[in-house]
Amino acid sequence: MKKLEIVYGIHPLIEAIIAKKTISKLFFQKGLRQVSNAYKKLISLSKKENIPIKTVSKQKFDQIKNKNHQGVFAILSPIETYHIEDLLPIFYEKGRNPLLIILDRITDVRNFGSIIRTAACAEVDAIIIPKKNTAIIGSDSIKTSSGALFKVPICKEKNIKKTIEFLINSGVKIVSATEKSDISLYNVDFSGPTALILGNEEKGIFSKYLEISYEKAKIPVRGISSLNVSVACGVILYEVFRQRKYHSKTHF
Amino acid sequence: MKKLEIVYGIHPLIEAIIAKKTISKLFFQKGLRQVSNAYKKLISLSKKENIPIKTVSKQKFDQIKNKNHQGVFAILSPIETYHIEDLLPIFYEKGRNPLLIILDRITDVRNFGSIIRTAACAEVDAIIIPKKNTAIIGSDSIKTSSGALFKVPICKEKNIKKTIEFLINSGVKIVSATEKSDISLYNVDFSGPTALILGNEEKGIFSKYLEISYEKAKIPVRGISSLNVSVACGVILYEVFRQRKYHSKTHF
Repeated sequence: MKKLEIVYGIHPLIEAIIAKKTISKLFFQKGLRQVSNAYKKLISLSKKENIPIKTVSKQKFDQIKNKNHQGVFAILSPIETYHIEDLLPIFYEKGRNPLLIILDRITDVRNFGSIIRTAACAEVDAIIIPKKNTAIIGSDSIKTSSGALFKVPICKEKNIKKTIEFLINSGVKIVSATEKSDISLYNVDFSGPTALILGNEEKGIFSKYLEISYEKAKIPVRGISSLNVSVACGVILYEVFRQRKYHSKTHF
Repeated sequence: MKKLEIVYGIHPLIEAIIAKKTISKLFFQKGLRQVSNAYKKLISLSKKENIPIKTVSKQKFDQIKNKNHQGVFAILSPIETYHIEDLLPIFYEKGRNPLLIILDRITDVRNFGSIIRTAACAEVDAIIIPKKNTAIIGSDSIKTSSGALFKVPICKEKNIKKTIEFLINSGVKIVSATEKSDISLYNVDFSGPTALILGNEEKGIFSKYLEISYEKAKIPVRGISSLNVSVACGVILYEVFRQRKYHSKTHF
């Protein structure tokens, strides 16, 4: 595990947030009153990026040797993120048959962590998440993922639709997991390069992503029941695994 | 959903606990001092059965119309539990090919709820849990199960080993899900009546249950990774579903 990086001071923190560094929490000195524009900007950015703020006693701050902390610091997450445009060629060069996951607005930290954990087990090559509207990569998701966050590369992409188009042009089959389909998971051929899209717990997958998916795969369920998204992810990833491992025909 | 049943008073509560009624929480009046033996018995029973105690203000208690509350009440869970000995003959009579889950000390409420939710989707006939050392069937597990707790019968059994022996004698194949096996899940034949054992998040399955299992099935994973128990449950249940649905041969 990499060493934790700590950032002090208002401006360095604003820059860290703008640079989309992964910050799990901002620490503010208790009772400190700041009215500067920079301070306000930091607050508004942290709200925009869903970074929680915690207040810490002055005594704790006095222990910090860096004198320019200005009453605020944050611990940068040691999770490095990537871009799939950089990774996909490497996967192909290594002779991998790429298996990717695209998480469309998965906001529950436990689901997010559990999906990453499953991905590490099921030989997923990379997980693609949007820069916004996603669970925070922080201590909770690291914990739920059982450390798998350090095993599967996470790609943060600004424009998921463009990322999907890039994948299609790179020979990757896009499969959306959705209940609104008549095609059973078991009738989908996962033998080639595949990106699986999993959607938001409530709203499902954006229609603009569904439209450009090659297949929409449904997990058969009894009645009106539905699976938790992290369980659905496991069921689909292991069907991919089974088909690839046993060179198994799909069930048509 | 059934109407909630509220029980007041020390003795009725002792009786409810002894009768193994499903109680998610005991409410005690704040500041009330009781030294009677019955009071002590209630406290010790609630500890033994892992029923949490919450204190509530006198004002709240004064709103209760039942005057004999003695400073204590509990809400009985509307979840009815069964015995597999009673249900299995019914499943056979109905022409079902029974699929059962045995949960060996699953203590995390979210895992428990998620397993029940998955079981409802994957056409599981009943879930068997031990009377002790199991997640509490309460509001949290109802929430996580997305209400599936009302769809799949829960069997609470005092002696799981005896229950397993009963199942074996009734023609049910016992399959333990364990990492400590060389047999892949995909090499296990799930075509007949099956009971799947899932073990505690940390400790796995009791060796005495493993010893009498017909098969030990391992989900293949990369490296030293491991799956969350509720995801593992989904992966296995859907392999059962796939084999049964498509009359598919297993991969030998």
